[in-house]
Amino acid sequence: MNAQQPHTPVTVLGLGAMGRAIAGAIHRGGHPTTVWNRSAGRADDLVAQGGVTLAPSAAEAVRASPVVVVCLLDDASVRDTLAALVDPLAGRLVVNVTTVTPNQARETATWAAEHGIEYLDGAIMAIPEMIGLPVASLLYSGSQAAFDTHRNLLELLGGARWFGEDAGLASLYDLALLGSMYSMFAGFAYGAALVGSEGVPAAEFAEMAAPWLTAMTGGLAGHAEHFDSADYTAETQSLTFNKAAVDTIAEAGRDQGVGTEVIAVVQHLIDRQITAGHGKESFARIFEGIRRPPTGGGGNEGR
Amino acid sequence: MNAQQPHTPVTVLGLGAMGRAIAGAIHRGGHPTTVWNRSAGRADDLVAQGGVTLAPSAAEAVRASPVVVVCLLDDASVRDTLAALVDPLAGRLVVNVTTVTPNQARETATWAAEHGIEYLDGAIMAIPEMIGLPVASLLYSGSQAAFDTHRNLLELLGGARWFGEDAGLASLYDLALLGSMYSMFAGFAYGAALVGSEGVPAAEFAEMAAPWLTAMTGGLAGHAEHFDSADYTAETQSLTFNKAAVDTIAEAGRDQGVGTEVIAVVQHLIDRQITAGHGKESFARIFEGIRRPPTGGGGNEGR
Ligand SMILES: NC(=O)c1ccc[n+]([C@@H]2O[C@H](COP(=O)([O-])OP(=O)(O)OC[C@H]3O[C@@H](n4cnc5c(N)ncnc54)[C@H](OP(=O)(O)O)[C@@H]3O)[C@@H](O)[C@H]2O)c1
Ligand SMILES: NC(=O)c1ccc[n+]([C@@H]2O[C@H](COP(=O)([O-])OP(=O)(O)OC[C@H]3O[C@@H](n4cnc5c(N)ncnc54)[C@H](OP(=O)(O)O)[C@@H]3O)[C@@H](O)[C@H]2O)c1
Repeated sequence: MNAQQPHTPVTVLGLGAMGRAIAGAIHRGGHPTTVWNRSAGRADDLVAQGGVTLAPSAAEAVRASPVVVVCLLDDASVRDTLAALVDPLAGRLVVNVTTVTPNQARETATWAAEHGIEYLDGAIMAIPEMIGLPVASLLYSGSQAAFDTHRNLLELLGGARWFGEDAGLASLYDLALLGSMYSMFAGFAYGAALVGSEGVPAAEFAEMAAPWLTAMTGGLAGHAEHFDSADYTAETQSLTFNKAAVDTIAEAGRDQGVGTEVIAVVQHLIDRQITAGHGKESFARIFEGIRRPPTGGGGNEGR
Repeated sequence: MNAQQPHTPVTVLGLGAMGRAIAGAIHRGGHPTTVWNRSAGRADDLVAQGGVTLAPSAAEAVRASPVVVVCLLDDASVRDTLAALVDPLAGRLVVNVTTVTPNQARETATWAAEHGIEYLDGAIMAIPEMIGLPVASLLYSGSQAAFDTHRNLLELLGGARWFGEDAGLASLYDLALLGSMYSMFAGFAYGAALVGSEGVPAAEFAEMAAPWLTAMTGGLAGHAEHFDSADYTAETQSLTFNKAAVDTIAEAGRDQGVGTEVIAVVQHLIDRQITAGHGKESFARIFEGIRRPPTGGGGNEGR
């Protein structure tokens, strides 16, 4: 079978909210689609719409297709499920889009190689409702051959980009982007709490914060230049200047009676660099305390 | 003298980087401009260009104009400087654009009222290079009459918006926006450290992170709706789902050997809500732990 044909049969293991969205998009793309889920009932809608086959067991589901998309809860459920499928999976491609850590992706890739299974790891930057739309973005790493061969199939789910043979890379990029986002969300919540303490509606604050933060993303490339060169010469404001600002932000939080943990972590990162003698350098210098956390607590003393 | 005339004389106290930019913009706008700075030499450039008058003392500087812009280092320097100027300032307007906390702004406003001084507090969302350009944004609160009367003058510095009679509001909005920004910057640094641990240049990560974070600001209005209604019913992902993602982001950081404080604070905020029984609600629920920090540590135990 030539996998470049538009209609490679595809199996989807796992029919949670995301697995169902994926199976639906693949089926709409014209691929014979077989699905399996641990508990019954999850496939009912898909099967009722016609054209999607529910397999009676995971092994039979796998045997139906050369490409097996795995979308389960977490790494443990992937291990449990795949461990019982070594024989049927041999010679097939596993595309594992379950959210896992880079190390977990690497371990599954090693396990797959040991059993003659081709492996592509995927990370989904989308919610189920976005699957199949251009706004969905999926990151992949692992077998480049598999990515190139099945690119059209993968693009049925959303934008597809391959990051390297190291199977951990897709997850690493995904978690790095998500981490930035969660931190921005926490910062927004802190800001909303500050103005909210004087009765300002968060909706009003969001109207200012969204364009403001968007404008401030314009500074990220400049920070990155500092990070990459490890040259933190301040062009404008020094870290000491930023310390004054961030300390004021925290003091205002205490004055207004809101929780200051979100800004305290920034204070902590700044203070660490100033204590080390870098007060005249730029704010971007905080990166050094993250990239190479102080030994002892491993920089993870916050947890 | 009618302050609505285009050429109200203006005095600027403080000629640091920001004070010089402000004095320059006001002078270019056609206002007779008098300046004063604690140490000598800071006015040399301005005076050399012609048209700006350096006063020999702060009191004489104040007497030259009905409007006195104060741009000093911090609240302490403002108090020191203004305390000696009670007599000359009486009947004039002070526009204090020094970065201070909301409470400090309120105290200065009260002090001013007690001495018959009109008071407008300002917060500058710009660096000196941006002053006078539309990209600069200045927030004001305090006397609305003063803001309305001198709006044209204030707009010489950049976009001008008034937030209310409470003199602390400009600073509160400013610090809230800056706090969100610093948190986003810290999150970006964490993400860059994650991918950087595998040799990915931060510049490459910035190219992905800037549009990603910009897109994610699209979610802030939705968060705000939850905050304002205190209804945290999850539309899509639950807090428990977000916990799994954020825990994975932190685990990846530990695996890759980078410092995880930035993401640990998000874990902490999530765990606090889940412990309180809100795991099925939305991520926006973390706001409640910031808005009403647990008593005891005042939610500020991170510091
Ligand atoms: N939903 C999103 O917005 C989103 C976004 C990005 C990434 N993702 C990732 O996509 C993956 C799936 O998410 P989801 O939203 O579809 O989750 P979900 O709705 O909770 O579905 C979880 C799926 O995993 C199965 N499962 C759990 N433990 C299992 C085990 N031990 N053995 C076999 N199957 C097991 C469940 O089967 P049962 O029906 O038998 O319980 C179900 O099919 C996750 O890794 C998630 O992080 C989701
Ligand atoms: N620069 C920016 O990007 C920026 C952005 C937003 C807001 N701001 C705010 O603008 C204000 C000024 O910033 P800047 O950048 O101009 O700072 P700067 O260059 O460090 O200048 C500080 C000014 O304060 C004066 N000063 C300090 N202590 C004093 C005291 N005890 N008595 C009298 N004068 C005193 C200094 O006078 P000497 O010359 O005698 O030392 C100098 O004129 C700060 O509140 C800052 O947060 C600045």
